[in-house]
Amino acid sequence: LKVGVIGSGALGLYYGAMLQRGGADVHYLLRRDYVALSSTGLKVFSVNGNFHLEQVKGYRDPTKIGQVDLVLVGLKTFANHSLVELVRPLVGPETLILTLQNGLGNEELLAAAFRPQQLLGGVAFLCSNRGEPGEVHHLGEGRIRLGNYASADLARCQNLADAFSRAGVPCEASDDLIRIRWEKLAWNIPFNGLCALTGKDVTELLEHAPTRELVADMMAEVVRAANRQSLKSPIDAANFIEHMLSVSDAMDHYKPSMMIDRLEGRRLELEAIYAIPLQRAREVGASMAQVDMLHRCLSVGETDPR
Amino acid sequence: LKVGVIGSGALGLYYGAMLQRGGADVHYLLRRDYVALSSTGLKVFSVNGNFHLEQVKGYRDPTKIGQVDLVLVGLKTFANHSLVELVRPLVGPETLILTLQNGLGNEELLAAAFRPQQLLGGVAFLCSNRGEPGEVHHLGEGRIRLGNYASADLARCQNLADAFSRAGVPCEASDDLIRIRWEKLAWNIPFNGLCALTGKDVTELLEHAPTRELVADMMAEVVRAANRQSLKSPIDAANFIEHMLSVSDAMDHYKPSMMIDRLEGRRLELEAIYAIPLQRAREVGASMAQVDMLHRCLSVGETDPR
Repeated sequence: LKVGVIGSGALGLYYGAMLQRGGADVHYLLRRDYVALSSTGLKVFSVNGNFHLEQVKGYRDPTKIGQVDLVLVGLKTFANHSLVELVRPLVGPETLILTLQNGLGNEELLAAAFRPQQLLGGVAFLCSNRGEPGEVHHLGEGRIRLGNYASADLARCQNLADAFSRAGVPCEASDDLIRIRWEKLAWNIPFNGLCALTGKDVTELLEHAPTRELVADMMAEVVRAANRQSLKSPIDAANFIEHMLSVSDAMDHYKPSMMIDRLEGRRLELEAIYAIPLQRAREVGASMAQVDMLHRCLSVGETDPR
Repeated sequence: LKVGVIGSGALGLYYGAMLQRGGADVHYLLRRDYVALSSTGLKVFSVNGNFHLEQVKGYRDPTKIGQVDLVLVGLKTFANHSLVELVRPLVGPETLILTLQNGLGNEELLAAAFRPQQLLGGVAFLCSNRGEPGEVHHLGEGRIRLGNYASADLARCQNLADAFSRAGVPCEASDDLIRIRWEKLAWNIPFNGLCALTGKDVTELLEHAPTRELVADMMAEVVRAANRQSLKSPIDAANFIEHMLSVSDAMDHYKPSMMIDRLEGRRLELEAIYAIPLQRAREVGASMAQVDMLHRCLSVGETDPR
């Protein structure tokens, strides 16, 4: 399996490393980590055991990678204006493109440039961050849920999920990409934004009753909007939210990616996690008032997308 | 006129200095600035012209001040657990107590300890901050609106307003303290909290359309709640909000007190500016959903009152 990783942040490096360790031929498009990875390889510090890939195929230019069997997209969505041009050199007629990016709008962007049947989307439940160049830290979880964007070929989807699972990344194939995207949003929308805005981590928000209630209320807003999308079966709000909260209670002072982005002065993924979901909700008459207010508060001082 | 200033932050120092320069016998209860004021006096850096009071009567102990004609209260409301004990030594049968503190609940606290007829409340439109010890910076505005808490003696209220005005502090006597408190809240609630939470100043919030709309929406929530309190005449929401926004547009990157409190690591005045107004709104069936969400976001990580 020849894999090209576009967007080699913590997520891209971690999943790329797992697939490579599992035997895949992995090619990484790199910026910050190019020199370090090319000289000393990639060190993975993982809760499941550290490992070191001494040989890593890194590139600055995607045309040097050539066509691959699987493009794994981990690009930050605020860089999506470059997404298609970065992916294009890797795509042949049989190539699968799997985007594990946050939020909504990523598949649509790719579907406008490539054959929609080649596209898959997925959501990653991964606690990870980058360390020094040449390192990635895996702090917890790691499983993936993925689904076809336009194809009805569930077997293909299951094969890809199996490939991840064999490489040590628990992976589930879903027949409803829209649902798994919205279920992930129900976590990302409250926690990413509230943590970024308040500077408090997941545990701090949950241990303070007024923000715990706010998180639950925002999850309910997202689930209501999700259930007006064309899901194959509706999300059971009460059970789902209780489950999300208990999963989150088990996280030990986790800092979501948007909180880290803000702390480190990077742009925020507001378009994919807030603006597009708010638009999709409005289109079906499901207002998300608290999500909207959070988005407004996060957006001040951010440069416009592109 | 013997005046005692309780709570000598930027507001207490500025108004105390103006009254003293106008001829009043002003006594300041001090903590941080005690040494500086006692040795080198008080320097006022004002948009209306700087001045220096070389002799300043500063105290660490309110019992040393003795009874006064007017107690001017500028204490931060998060220190209200000490309010009554600090004020008590200054109060005789004829003493007037004027609280210029932020938000709601201050008059009620004083009314439980002193004769309600001796109480006045006021709101200050003052852009000021403290500089080095012994200094205060007056950046703009400065006018006061005040009203009786329980007394019907409007002439007394007007006399006090005239005393401020003669000392160079434009001051208006109102016959509706509840209304002037809520009108001030309609500014304080959106701007203090949003600036503290986002780290952006008044100008930055107003120049970004999504937060400008949010500010206006929150003002509308506050006005709706205000108009269900027992006001003598209702606030005309549209005109009032347009006026508030245009006044705020004229402020040049002003940082509200709560933003400065947060930047400097002090506690926030959440009880007076958010919790009590939210309670008063709930009591009359006027929910303030956006105000409530802002309060929740501000409260995480704050210690509880008292």
